[in-house]
Amino acid sequence: MNILVVGSIALDSVETPWGSANDSPGGSALYFSSAASFFAPVNVVGVVGTDFDFKAVDFLRQRSVNFDGIDQQEGLTFRWGGRYHMDLNQRDTLFTDLNVFENFNPKIPEFYRNSDLVFLANIDPDLQMQVLRQIPRPKLVILDTMNFWITGKRKSLDEVIGQTDVLILNDEEARMLTDTGNLITAGRRILERGPKFLIIKKGEHGAVLLHDNSYFSAPAYPLEKVVDPTGAGDSFAGGFVGYIAHTGKIDEPTMRRAIIYGSTVASFNVEDFSFRRLVSLNRKEMEARVDDFSRITVY
Amino acid sequence: MNILVVGSIALDSVETPWGSANDSPGGSALYFSSAASFFAPVNVVGVVGTDFDFKAVDFLRQRSVNFDGIDQQEGLTFRWGGRYHMDLNQRDTLFTDLNVFENFNPKIPEFYRNSDLVFLANIDPDLQMQVLRQIPRPKLVILDTMNFWITGKRKSLDEVIGQTDVLILNDEEARMLTDTGNLITAGRRILERGPKFLIIKKGEHGAVLLHDNSYFSAPAYPLEKVVDPTGAGDSFAGGFVGYIAHTGKIDEPTMRRAIIYGSTVASFNVEDFSFRRLVSLNRKEMEARVDDFSRITVY
Repeated sequence: MNILVVGSIALDSVETPWGSANDSPGGSALYFSSAASFFAPVNVVGVVGTDFDFKAVDFLRQRSVNFDGIDQQEGLTFRWGGRYHMDLNQRDTLFTDLNVFENFNPKIPEFYRNSDLVFLANIDPDLQMQVLRQIPRPKLVILDTMNFWITGKRKSLDEVIGQTDVLILNDEEARMLTDTGNLITAGRRILERGPKFLIIKKGEHGAVLLHDNSYFSAPAYPLEKVVDPTGAGDSFAGGFVGYIAHTGKIDEPTMRRAIIYGSTVASFNVEDFSFRRLVSLNRKEMEARVDDFSRITVY
Repeated sequence: MNILVVGSIALDSVETPWGSANDSPGGSALYFSSAASFFAPVNVVGVVGTDFDFKAVDFLRQRSVNFDGIDQQEGLTFRWGGRYHMDLNQRDTLFTDLNVFENFNPKIPEFYRNSDLVFLANIDPDLQMQVLRQIPRPKLVILDTMNFWITGKRKSLDEVIGQTDVLILNDEEARMLTDTGNLITAGRRILERGPKFLIIKKGEHGAVLLHDNSYFSAPAYPLEKVVDPTGAGDSFAGGFVGYIAHTGKIDEPTMRRAIIYGSTVASFNVEDFSFRRLVSLNRKEMEARVDDFSRITVY
């Protein structure tokens, strides 16, 4: 199976207590691709400015990531700046310069339209719907979103959630979307709104998968040193969708294993700035950590 | 193996959005005993007033809980009143009347002194040390504490932690005790201070066990309706220590399974006020939920 991802492409400037990185390639589409491309071919749709240096992401081309759907527009690439503190769960946004991303108008190239798995990264739900209208029904639509759209574009978001097979949220978003405190109840309610599968990410507490009456809980990998949490969610999604594409199976047991692969890739991603660690990572290291995961929950 | 528990005995008045209960038997020693007595004989040390009605805890006697170490003093039993809100993680204490508990002076009866497993429930660390000084070194000392003693009696607490084999904390307390944000780092540092095993409870996110270089993560049971969270921690400890006593084995693999039993008993306990649910609970129901647990993490 191959994968279509539609999302942001950015140049990130990040400060943490352990250092900083300026104008490093980032954005949901690139973090996702860096992870998913370990497993399957990825077709990217996004927008960059004339300042974007494709050499910085050349390793992705070598991993069967197709950039032909990236629109290069006159102007500057989307830039985001943020600062993390010792408590990595809190971050300050220092600046958000949308630049060419402000008028992002995703167009799916003809040769991308039969992608099997479609990951709609966290962008305006109106644009997410615009993507779905351009393509035949894929085998699986996976959706990410955030609190900004839950409060600001609820009607559009509900529409795209209704077209979604796998919804990925964090715990705060799941509670916000259903206005309920109990995470299990929140999850059950979301499953009544369209998605057949719901993944709730809980940061250092791992992730859970809800589907019909089944419930799966995955631990987080016990990392003592997180250098840069940027892109953790998108690299998780990339590992998750990539693993499904690799197996070619769309069922609950496969998704359980896919969550372990997503968690594994995300745990490597946060060990360095940008997606540097995913450039150097090899499959042997990845499989070793997947094995570690199985030892964490066995009893 | 048999068990000694030293802790509070209280009459609790609890209000929740789903109802209330007045002057119900509670306190760490009774919650612990209600859980542990499913697995092994329990010897209780505590103090009550002349108003305490032992008939309310007669079911414990039938489960081999020995109350001969309970000191009945002139005066009133310790009373605690609390109110929970829709977000059950927050509670308001309405009143705390220590009464006879104020001068609790735990004396371990001669016939209790060779208890194999000693659970020091959350009381003043000076009293916890006083207990340990009265008895020969047990096979296993399990300690609970709280933020109040971490900030208020740190020196005494550090002393008793140095004598502890298994320390049970929640995530906030683990971070507070080590002044560090990363829970794994916090855990490793605590293991350098004496305890061979550390359990960090994370409420709806489950619990983790740290020991040498091993790491175990247990999910929480996915409960949609929690009626009264009072006693969750002590019934967890009761199930945990009880299971170890039952198996007679003190090693890491046994403790992993003991955490699943502790989590199971605690998940029943919060389904009703006081420990009512642990009165009606039978082993068949418990084992069915233990089986459910194994399906939550398998992949």
